Amino acid sequence: MTTVACAPVDLVEVWRGDILESMHQGHAVICGADGQIVDAWGDAGAVIYPRSSCKMIQALPLIESGAADAHGLGTRQLALACASHQGARIHTDPVQDWLDTLGLQDADFRCGPQWPADVPARNAIIRAHAGPCQIHNNCSGKHAGFLTLNRHISGGADYELVDHPVQQMGRAAFQETTGEDSPGYGIDGCSAPNFATTVHGLARAMAAFASAHDRSDTRSHAMVRLREAMMLHPELVAGETRACTDLMRAMDGRAAIKTGAEGVFVAIVPEARVGVALKIADGTTRAAEAAIAAILVRLGVLDADHPAARARMVPDIRNWRGTLCGRIAPVTALAGR
Amino acid sequence: MTTVACAPVDLVEVWRGDILESMHQGHAVICGADGQIVDAWGDAGAVIYPRSSCKMIQALPLIESGAADAHGLGTRQLALACASHQGARIHTDPVQDWLDTLGLQDADFRCGPQWPADVPARNAIIRAHAGPCQIHNNCSGKHAGFLTLNRHISGGADYELVDHPVQQMGRAAFQETTGEDSPGYGIDGCSAPNFATTVHGLARAMAAFASAHDRSDTRSHAMVRLREAMMLHPELVAGETRACTDLMRAMDGRAAIKTGAEGVFVAIVPEARVGVALKIADGTTRAAEAAIAAILVRLGVLDADHPAARARMVPDIRNWRGTLCGRIAPVTALAGR
Repeated sequence: MTTVACAPVDLVEVWRGDILESMHQGHAVICGADGQIVDAWGDAGAVIYPRSSCKMIQALPLIESGAADAHGLGTRQLALACASHQGARIHTDPVQDWLDTLGLQDADFRCGPQWPADVPARNAIIRAHAGPCQIHNNCSGKHAGFLTLNRHISGGADYELVDHPVQQMGRAAFQETTGEDSPGYGIDGCSAPNFATTVHGLARAMAAFASAHDRSDTRSHAMVRLREAMMLHPELVAGETRACTDLMRAMDGRAAIKTGAEGVFVAIVPEARVGVALKIADGTTRAAEAAIAAILVRLGVLDADHPAARARMVPDIRNWRGTLCGRIAPVTALAGR
Repeated sequence: MTTVACAPVDLVEVWRGDILESMHQGHAVICGADGQIVDAWGDAGAVIYPRSSCKMIQALPLIESGAADAHGLGTRQLALACASHQGARIHTDPVQDWLDTLGLQDADFRCGPQWPADVPARNAIIRAHAGPCQIHNNCSGKHAGFLTLNRHISGGADYELVDHPVQQMGRAAFQETTGEDSPGYGIDGCSAPNFATTVHGLARAMAAFASAHDRSDTRSHAMVRLREAMMLHPELVAGETRACTDLMRAMDGRAAIKTGAEGVFVAIVPEARVGVALKIADGTTRAAEAAIAAILVRLGVLDADHPAARARMVPDIRNWRGTLCGRIAPVTALAGR
């Protein structure tokens, strides 16, 4: 068995009153276009699952194979292929159109049914005394991409299995962009394999996306298209009130960012030609959001005073009556305060 | 400012496939009736907020003052006073009856409106296009207790404020049972003050509850009544599918346990005359549940093979299609495997 090398460091504090109530530790790497570490906290060599943070890597074969162009996919579909959306109508309607174009149905997905996080969508299902479909799954855009690629390459049934050509193409792209042999894989929430790498490896892949406009190969062109699609449609990558959407809007095209389950976050910063990857060791989303916001401020692409930045980097903790009880805050070493 | 002394240790692992995906660290203490540590992991002196785990301490003045008997409170109301319930009808109906008896209304609460975690109750509100009331707040039973005590002592308005007699009586009980001067307080999710103590202090208080049947003073009588009420009505202390309810049912009167926000859990084990307190440093509930289950197994009051024990101590991680992806597990040092 492989274990995480053990040196996470304090990254995000949770204060209530004058007492430090909880602490989140983790690992973070800022990587340059040459693949080398620019800055790091904790253990850059810690092995992690990127989870949904690597969806833009998983979408590379969709473009590189010619499948995206053969099916006329636009920037909206590419953004959805990289998304962990919350199942709002703005997400499920275009994914349904995409499915229709392929002549496929909800039952052709392999991501499983998931209640939408979007409150109006969830409430509509509850009021109809119904249940969610696979299209509501936060990964349904990624799976529409898998289905499109599979159609293009005639890959056969069971596209979600690790030995299927669709996933093997994803694995190759993953290993090539991270620059590492993956030490293994896990089954993700959406049933697709999720390949492990180090925090450094994941940051290296993001740096390749960030510097892709300096190169003219097929992969680099695909990388530019995916990162631009994410930044063009931040509302499709996650949804209203969500960190990826709010922070990408606040940065207005200066960075593409993506969350992953269990405390992962990545960023692609083209103007600085750096990639960022971080993992909160305990898997907590609130800490991953605070940490990525702090690093984006540090890199100069997010204004610390923007309301969206404050809401994620140093969020107030309020109780059921709205009383201010405490605050979450990145440690000084991360924020550079 | 007071900070948590820094030596949390690994307590609960999160595995996906063959790779350790996340790790939860924390502090835990098993304390004897003499107030001394029987067993400890991490820093027994770490300062924590007990959050809702100390509701049985906050309920002591309700009994000791004579308010509970003057108002004819039975074991159901006492269990609800110690509860973090999920707003199901089995919780809100008796709290409403209790309010009616006091001649008070929902607006007299100071806990704030909270969406019920109970799915049928939540869905009923959504289908009615309505919103939650304060009675749905998980702390409404505790606040009904505060209101009862306040009526009994004619404490005046704003019972939730730290300087109010109701909260000062709670503070005295807290400091006396933990055996420590509280270093400060925070405002809890329900607007009541939550006094800080060490993990050892909280475990010491639970040990006093556990050994109370050996003593005949007023406080010890109150402690026995509260712990017995919790064990008699596990469904009122939390609700269906919840850890406190499921594990107390599995132990069938051998221990009273209570969760608290931000990764706290306590246990009262009368037959062993020990109290347990633990805090997951990152504040995560899944880890607190796994850790307390492991300690209860270690203490011999929970059968490791009981389905409820397995579901909390070593829960399967399954994805949206039900595929087994991984497992949560207490570290060997905790489980004694």
